[in-house]
Amino acid sequence: MKIGIVGGTGDIGEGMALRFSQRHSVIIGSRNEEKAILCCDECEHILEGTGVACSLLGQSNQGAIDASDIIILAIPYSHVTSTIENLHGFEDKIVISPINPLQRSDFFFYAPPPEGSAALLVQKLLPDSAKLCVAFNNIAATKWREIGTPLNYSVAICGDDRQAKRVAFELTASVPNLKPLDGGPLAAASMVESITPLLLNLGKFNRLKDVGVKFQ
Amino acid sequence: MKIGIVGGTGDIGEGMALRFSQRHSVIIGSRNEEKAILCCDECEHILEGTGVACSLLGQSNQGAIDASDIIILAIPYSHVTSTIENLHGFEDKIVISPINPLQRSDFFFYAPPPEGSAALLVQKLLPDSAKLCVAFNNIAATKWREIGTPLNYSVAICGDDRQAKRVAFELTASVPNLKPLDGGPLAAASMVESITPLLLNLGKFNRLKDVGVKFQ
Repeated sequence: MKIGIVGGTGDIGEGMALRFSQRHSVIIGSRNEEKAILCCDECEHILEGTGVACSLLGQSNQGAIDASDIIILAIPYSHVTSTIENLHGFEDKIVISPINPLQRSDFFFYAPPPEGSAALLVQKLLPDSAKLCVAFNNIAATKWREIGTPLNYSVAICGDDRQAKRVAFELTASVPNLKPLDGGPLAAASMVESITPLLLNLGKFNRLKDVGVKFQ
Repeated sequence: MKIGIVGGTGDIGEGMALRFSQRHSVIIGSRNEEKAILCCDECEHILEGTGVACSLLGQSNQGAIDASDIIILAIPYSHVTSTIENLHGFEDKIVISPINPLQRSDFFFYAPPPEGSAALLVQKLLPDSAKLCVAFNNIAATKWREIGTPLNYSVAICGDDRQAKRVAFELTASVPNLKPLDGGPLAAASMVESITPLLLNLGKFNRLKDVGVKFQ
């Protein structure tokens, strides 16, 4: 698979690059191409230390989209509209949204847009032919980056396109211990996204770090 | 602890009675007292078969409330308002809501009332001095009833009263393998309730039975 990570120099994006580049071609995208190239060097350096071969390339966000079959939107919710509106070429591509709309007061809470979920907002912003899936919403950035530790979590995947869902399943299953599960259509994504503020609350109120979820 | 289960003859209520009566005094409540007594006999018969001692009593829902310190509302969401409005005596008691407002189309989805969650609706219906907690929302009735199988799940508990939360923690921890976690204030309960329709979707779309959740 050729995977482009939009926002790939952020915490989650870099963590995903570290995991996925061991098994797939990963293109780290950034608004700043130089930053993407530096991020690649850093990832290669980390992976070299573990003796693992990897395939990584740094490009602009647009370059990452143009060169990839699968695009992961590793961007904060607040940047969704501006980022997608400034990019193009999503036609016919598989797009994965791990985006969670959340806010914080005394606790973290789910704060979706009027569309009902970040996923449904992203769908509205993408061209009709883009094949959108929701996946990887409930795994903390730190966990992605701890490459020596298996990701012993479930990944609920929502989407309306069968092929895209199958690819998201394969991508998930290519990471040791990560278990993909079909979460239903894209319209069901809010229930996956809203687990993330709950996980943050469980961390905050139980003094735990980077809580994840397993369905069993 | 003396635990009254309102709606205790339903699937979840009876399952809870089977688990809790091994360690606490349980009063199964029902709109129909005779049905509650029959349900007790059935539970005693099931537990007798496993050689486990238990403490069970069948009463009306009102009798269960009057005789208990902790009241579990094991009622379907659609009956919340009518049930609570027809009962009294919740003053100063610890009340536990495992209620999930959900609906079904092609998939299950979270359908909270205007208050924001079943928990916040229940809070509005109860007297101010009632100490409400949300707990046990994400465990399937069948799992409660399989008393030979440990409940290897997490229980996220939300509430604003410290004492009630402590009691809900103790009650949860009294069931082997069940792990209580502080989910924050009652206002955060929607994120716990909305996991249940997701679990039903995971069951439906992956041909799994009675999926539960573990935070780790």
